[in-house]
Amino acid sequence: MIRKRILTGDRPTGKLHLGHYVGSLANRAKLQDEYETYILIADVQALTDNFAHPEKVRENVREVLLDNLAVGIDPEKATFHIQSMIPETAELTVFFANLVTVSRLERNPTVKDEIAQRGFNKSLPLGFFMYPVSQAADIAVVRANLVPVGADQIPHVEQTREIVREFNRVYGGNIFPEPEALLGKVKRLAGTDGGAKMSKSLGNVIYLSDDAEEVKSKVMAMYTDPTRIHPNDPGHVEGNPVFEYHKAFNKNQAEVRDLEERYQKGKVGDVEVKERLALALNEFLDPIREKRCEYESKGPKYLDEILLEGTKKARQVTQETLKMVRSAMKIDYF
Amino acid sequence: MIRKRILTGDRPTGKLHLGHYVGSLANRAKLQDEYETYILIADVQALTDNFAHPEKVRENVREVLLDNLAVGIDPEKATFHIQSMIPETAELTVFFANLVTVSRLERNPTVKDEIAQRGFNKSLPLGFFMYPVSQAADIAVVRANLVPVGADQIPHVEQTREIVREFNRVYGGNIFPEPEALLGKVKRLAGTDGGAKMSKSLGNVIYLSDDAEEVKSKVMAMYTDPTRIHPNDPGHVEGNPVFEYHKAFNKNQAEVRDLEERYQKGKVGDVEVKERLALALNEFLDPIREKRCEYESKGPKYLDEILLEGTKKARQVTQETLKMVRSAMKIDYF
Repeated sequence: MIRKRILTGDRPTGKLHLGHYVGSLANRAKLQDEYETYILIADVQALTDNFAHPEKVRENVREVLLDNLAVGIDPEKATFHIQSMIPETAELTVFFANLVTVSRLERNPTVKDEIAQRGFNKSLPLGFFMYPVSQAADIAVVRANLVPVGADQIPHVEQTREIVREFNRVYGGNIFPEPEALLGKVKRLAGTDGGAKMSKSLGNVIYLSDDAEEVKSKVMAMYTDPTRIHPNDPGHVEGNPVFEYHKAFNKNQAEVRDLEERYQKGKVGDVEVKERLALALNEFLDPIREKRCEYESKGPKYLDEILLEGTKKARQVTQETLKMVRSAMKIDYF
Repeated sequence: MIRKRILTGDRPTGKLHLGHYVGSLANRAKLQDEYETYILIADVQALTDNFAHPEKVRENVREVLLDNLAVGIDPEKATFHIQSMIPETAELTVFFANLVTVSRLERNPTVKDEIAQRGFNKSLPLGFFMYPVSQAADIAVVRANLVPVGADQIPHVEQTREIVREFNRVYGGNIFPEPEALLGKVKRLAGTDGGAKMSKSLGNVIYLSDDAEEVKSKVMAMYTDPTRIHPNDPGHVEGNPVFEYHKAFNKNQAEVRDLEERYQKGKVGDVEVKERLALALNEFLDPIREKRCEYESKGPKYLDEILLEGTKKARQVTQETLKMVRSAMKIDYF
């Protein structure tokens, strides 16, 4: 019985944070035994909006690997691979580009948001515009069944499903399964500033690699309930990121319910709720920090070896896929 | 002293015709000693508007090679290579996509015309929209200096120049020369129907592989001067494809001048002018037919060997290019 495959990954543009954890990393760690797991370091995609700053991408390739290892993903189980070292993905991207229209890409809501956020507008680079097609190729080239992702990635998985469906319709061969998205238990983690999304570029982030002091100071500065002026005013728990984090990361959910109750009655101050959160987050992060140390101490050569071996292993699958693709597309001439 | 490089090629969507000859093939044959010549069988590009009919592309790969050999291109001198077998081109296409904007691509006049001609409009596939970027990669991946092409390809060479200039500016490394377009002696050969361009899809074409009878019957049915009702009416030579072909292909230019003079005075009938053209064209095509026979008689294995060997040779260059590209882009991690 062949195990089903997971494909997911990270853009190496910075260290990973709590939002990545709840969105995708937790599921990766949880499912690595059940699924054959492929984790992509998406450097080519990172270049679509960092093409003039490749050094930033380069610096973060090993950081992102370390973040994955630190949360308990086992390099003996998961296959870490580097996008730019998989030429089959570029080839499949070019073939997939024939199966999606320009106007369909224009309708992708995540890309629309990101274009606005980056101020691309009329100077929109083709690479950024078409990155969902590349991402479809990332998923399809390992013939993945499941994609653990955050909510903003749902439109891309849907785009992937459409493209592989079209490929199967036009060329037959039934090469690609239609991948399913798997959302984390928190759909979208708010930023420390109360913004809708934790995002490095917004500076509202707690990193998996932050030390205990950094976490405490970020938590103490967090946005809470703006309608609450005094500690004995009744407070709001909904839409309050401090409570959102408590619910997501505090192992003692009885404590969380107690804090919520007292907060709504005006019987606990923000300071105490935040101090408890800092403690809970650090308790959550401690084993992650420990594992990071463990892997860091093995040295950069060890990390490189994981990436090299993983990429080599992934290419066995991707080359097999392209062989099937060429045959289905009738371009296997010799 | 390193010879400069030529890159040019053909989409394997049908047999080549007289328009291809004057636009590009004549220059290829003429320059194959002076330049290191790479000739691309552009199957991936052919798929951008034939993606649902890959068998058509497949059938024409060897046809297009034969047409090139027939006009005297020596497989020992020129390197024939198959686009889909050069993964470096796909990789470079993806990198180049970051260096060109969507709005810049929208301004390409040739693509605009072609979109209208194919009725793509709102269902425009991304692959077709972005094929000039792929074409830039075709040229750049062998670091070509010169591109012998027809007039409709000028915007694509200009797009290539812009992209490689931007690559050189952003990443340095000075990897890519800015390629020049080389136009044939006839900028754009009219169709047999008097249309602006000889084009298979318009059915106004004389193929290099047409036999003497086919050529004669196509010539006798050609569009001439619509204002001329009787053989003794003075006729127009300008814009008259029969005379355009005489000028382009008749070895006896004294005969052509004599016919022109008599035509303008109403002293020669269309039938005679066309009969002379049929003779001249067949005289021009006879050695091409002979060479085609010669190569055909060597059998399909011989042709496959040319393509396989050429692709292998081309990949030495393209792999070298991508190595330099990765280094300039700082994604040569290990």
